[in-house]
Amino acid sequence: MGITESLARFIVETDSDAIPAKVRREATRSLVNWSGCALGGANHPAVSAALQALSPFAGPGRASVLGRSERVDALHAALFNGISSHVLDFDDTHPDTLVHPSGPVLSALLALSQHHPVNGKDFLDATAMGIEAECRVAQAVGKAHYDIGWHVTGTAGGFGAAAACGRALKLNPQQMTWALGIAATQAAGLREMFGSMCKSLHPGKAAQNGLGAALLAQAGFTSSMQSIEGPRGFAKVTSTQPHEERLLEGIGERWEALDNTYKPYACGLVIHPVIDACVAAHASGKVAPGDVEQVMLYAHPLVLELTGKTCPTTGLEGKFSVYHAAAMALLEGRSLSSHFTDAAVAQPAVVALRDRVKVESVPDMRVDEARAVFMLRDGTRWAHHVEHALGSLGRPMSDQDLSQKFMLLAQKALPVQAAERALQACWRMEELENAGAIALALSLPHATP
Amino acid sequence: MGITESLARFIVETDSDAIPAKVRREATRSLVNWSGCALGGANHPAVSAALQALSPFAGPGRASVLGRSERVDALHAALFNGISSHVLDFDDTHPDTLVHPSGPVLSALLALSQHHPVNGKDFLDATAMGIEAECRVAQAVGKAHYDIGWHVTGTAGGFGAAAACGRALKLNPQQMTWALGIAATQAAGLREMFGSMCKSLHPGKAAQNGLGAALLAQAGFTSSMQSIEGPRGFAKVTSTQPHEERLLEGIGERWEALDNTYKPYACGLVIHPVIDACVAAHASGKVAPGDVEQVMLYAHPLVLELTGKTCPTTGLEGKFSVYHAAAMALLEGRSLSSHFTDAAVAQPAVVALRDRVKVESVPDMRVDEARAVFMLRDGTRWAHHVEHALGSLGRPMSDQDLSQKFMLLAQKALPVQAAERALQACWRMEELENAGAIALALSLPHATP
Repeated sequence: MGITESLARFIVETDSDAIPAKVRREATRSLVNWSGCALGGANHPAVSAALQALSPFAGPGRASVLGRSERVDALHAALFNGISSHVLDFDDTHPDTLVHPSGPVLSALLALSQHHPVNGKDFLDATAMGIEAECRVAQAVGKAHYDIGWHVTGTAGGFGAAAACGRALKLNPQQMTWALGIAATQAAGLREMFGSMCKSLHPGKAAQNGLGAALLAQAGFTSSMQSIEGPRGFAKVTSTQPHEERLLEGIGERWEALDNTYKPYACGLVIHPVIDACVAAHASGKVAPGDVEQVMLYAHPLVLELTGKTCPTTGLEGKFSVYHAAAMALLEGRSLSSHFTDAAVAQPAVVALRDRVKVESVPDMRVDEARAVFMLRDGTRWAHHVEHALGSLGRPMSDQDLSQKFMLLAQKALPVQAAERALQACWRMEELENAGAIALALSLPHATP
Repeated sequence: MGITESLARFIVETDSDAIPAKVRREATRSLVNWSGCALGGANHPAVSAALQALSPFAGPGRASVLGRSERVDALHAALFNGISSHVLDFDDTHPDTLVHPSGPVLSALLALSQHHPVNGKDFLDATAMGIEAECRVAQAVGKAHYDIGWHVTGTAGGFGAAAACGRALKLNPQQMTWALGIAATQAAGLREMFGSMCKSLHPGKAAQNGLGAALLAQAGFTSSMQSIEGPRGFAKVTSTQPHEERLLEGIGERWEALDNTYKPYACGLVIHPVIDACVAAHASGKVAPGDVEQVMLYAHPLVLELTGKTCPTTGLEGKFSVYHAAAMALLEGRSLSSHFTDAAVAQPAVVALRDRVKVESVPDMRVDEARAVFMLRDGTRWAHHVEHALGSLGRPMSDQDLSQKFMLLAQKALPVQAAERALQACWRMEELENAGAIALALSLPHATP
C-alpha cells in the first residue's frame, strides 16, 4: 500500500480513543485562535471584494460568513472564512513547515458542519486529523517546496481540509484516498502573491477545494491512488527534494497539532522576536524614539528574505517589512493589527524611525530568536536579547492570552457580549452536540435583503 | 512594464478590427468541436458524480449544463462543462504545447455569457484572446513544465479562461493583470491523474477558477503585478526551463487559434497516426485480424510515454493504451468513443489482438507520423506509412468533418433535430445578438424538480 493510501486509512480508521485528549485540547485552542482571526478580518476589503464578486453565484445554503450577516453555501463559506482568517496574517503557524494549519482545515470543517451535523468531539478529532495531514504533506515536500516559491499553506492546505471533511463525512478508505488525490491535483499558491490579497485567497481556496474534494470523492469521483508519491504526483512535481518518508514517520504517536503555535502580533512570524525586543526597549524607558540614531537588529536570515521591504506603501506590504514592524513597536510599545494599515505605514514618525533600522542576518540564530542594539544620539546604547519570541513553542501563548487576543479581534465584527458568548462556546466545543452552532455564534444575525 | 501586464493590455486593448476574420472563423470551429465533445460527455459518470456532489451547493443562476436539464450558477456551469468537454479526450489540441485550449476558455466564457450578455462577435474575439493567452502561457513555461508532471491544460487553462472572461467583461488593464495573477496562483493539475476522473476535472477547474479570477479582479481583488515573470511567479515556480520571452513573441501577428487542431478519434492525440494506419490496414482488406501474428508500430517516443498501458482495465485507461487503440481500430476499421469503455477494453478479441501489438519509439519521427508493419501467420507482411494523421495541422479536419463529429456526439445527449439546430446556431455564432442563447440550444429544457 502506498503512502497516500496509508494516510487515508489513518485519517478515517483511527479510533477517537486513540487521539489523546491533549490533542483535542490543542485543536480547541486552534479554534479559538482561528475564529478570532476570522472575526478580526471579516470586514477587510479582501473579504468584501470576494463577497461582492462571488456571492451572486453562491448557493442557497445557510452557512455563515464569520463576523458578517451574509449566509452562503458551505463551499463559498469555506472560501470566505479562509480568506478572513488569514488576511491579517495573525493565524497559527506550524514552525517546522511554515504552514498556517487552521485556515484551510477549520474554514472547510465549520462550513461543512452547518451542512452535515457533526458533534463537538468528532469536530475536534477531524480538526486534529486535518492539521495532521496538512503538516505531514508539507513535511513530505520539505523545505525545497517553499524555497521554489510555493506558499505551502495553499498547497498542503487542501489536503488538510480534505482530511478533516473526509473524516467528518465518515468516508471509507477508498473515498478518502480519492479525496486526497482531488486535493492534490488542485494544490496551488505562489509566494509571488505575498503583499497582495491573493495571499489570503490561498487558505480560502485550499478550504473550498478540500471540502469539494471530500464531497466529490463521496459521490465516487475518482483520482490516482498514489497522488502524493506517484512518479508525477504532488511530492515529485512540486519539490526538488521531497522527503516522502516523513509522511508516515511516527504517525499516531507524534501529533502535529501539539507543535502548532499562535501569534501575539499580526504580522509575519519571523519578525516576532524583533518586535519583542522593541516592545522591551519601549518598556525599559531608556529608548525614546526621538533619541534613536540607529537600531541594529540581528536575526535569522528568513527575516530579510521574507520581510525585507524597506519602503512599504500599503498595510499589506507593511506586514512584510521588518523595518516598519520594528519602528511601530518601538513607538507604541506593542503591536496591533491596526499598525498594519495603509495609513499606519505612511505616518511620518514611523517612516523616519524605520529608515534608522538596520537588519543583519545571523545564520546560526534560531528563527524565534533576535538581538537588538539601540544606538542613541548621545552615544549611549541599550541592547536586548530575545531567547524565545512570545508565541513560539519555547514560550507559548496561554489560554488567557488566546482569549484576550480573541476579544481584541472579535470586537471588530461582533458586539462585545456576543463576542464573549462566542468565545465561551469555542472553549466548550468538545461538549457540544452540534458543532455547526458555533458558526452562528461567530456571525451576525442574517438580515434578509 | 512586465510581460504579465503587457499581456493584460493586449487582451483588453486590442481592437476587434485587429483580430483577423480567419481567427474568429477558427474560434467558431473550436466552438463546434468543443460543444460536440461536451454533449458527448454530458452523461459520463464523472459529470454525474460531480453534479451529484456539488449541485446542492450551486447558486440560483440559470446557466446551462450542456446536454442536460440542470441549471446552475455560472461558476458551477463552467466546472461541469469543462469536465464534460474533456472527459472523452476528444477535444482540441494545440500541438506546440499539448494544451487543450477550448475546455477552459469556452466552458468559462459560455457560462459567463448566460450571466452577462455578450454578442456573438465579441464572444469569438474573447475566445480567440483566451486561446491566445492560454497557449502563450504554456509556451512561456515550455516543455520542461509538462515533463515535470504538470497537466498544462489545467495550469495554463486558468489564464485562458481569465483572459476570455476578462475581455468579455471589458476589464481595464489593471483588473486584467490582477485576473491573470488570481488565475496564476490557482494554476494546478498533475499528470499523475491521467486515467482517472481528475484528468477532466483539470479543464473544469481551470474554467471555474479563470471565470472566478475575472470576477474577483473586477471587484478590486488584487494580485501581484508580475504573476508570470516574477522571481516566485508562475513561470519560474512551475518550470525548470521557462521561455518567458515567448509569451509576447509576435503577439498580434501570429494567432495561436490558427494552430489549433481537432481530433477525429476519442483518445490521446499521439495515438492518432497509429489508428490511421490500422484503419488503413482494415480498409485494405489484406489484414484480417484473425491472421495477425504481430503488429509492429514505429512512432514518436511520446506514444509510449503517454499511452504505454499494456493491460488497460477501464475505458479511461484504454484511452492511454496504444495497444488497445490499435487493436480496436484494426478490428473495427474506425475509432469511436464507444471503443473506450470498460466493456470494450475487456472484450476477448480485443485483448488477444492487443497482446500482439509491439511499439518501437523512433526519436526522429514527428508526433503526427507513424509506420505500421502487419506480420501475418502465413509469413506475408503489409506495411503502411502515415505522413500526417487526420486532424493534424498537415491534414486538418474540414468543416464537414467537424459537423459530422458534432452530430455523432450530440445525439448522445440531445434529440437529433435539436442537435441539428444547435449545430447550425454554433456555425452562425458571429451573427448572434446574444451568445448565451447557444447554451440553451446545447442543453435540454429545464425540468423544475
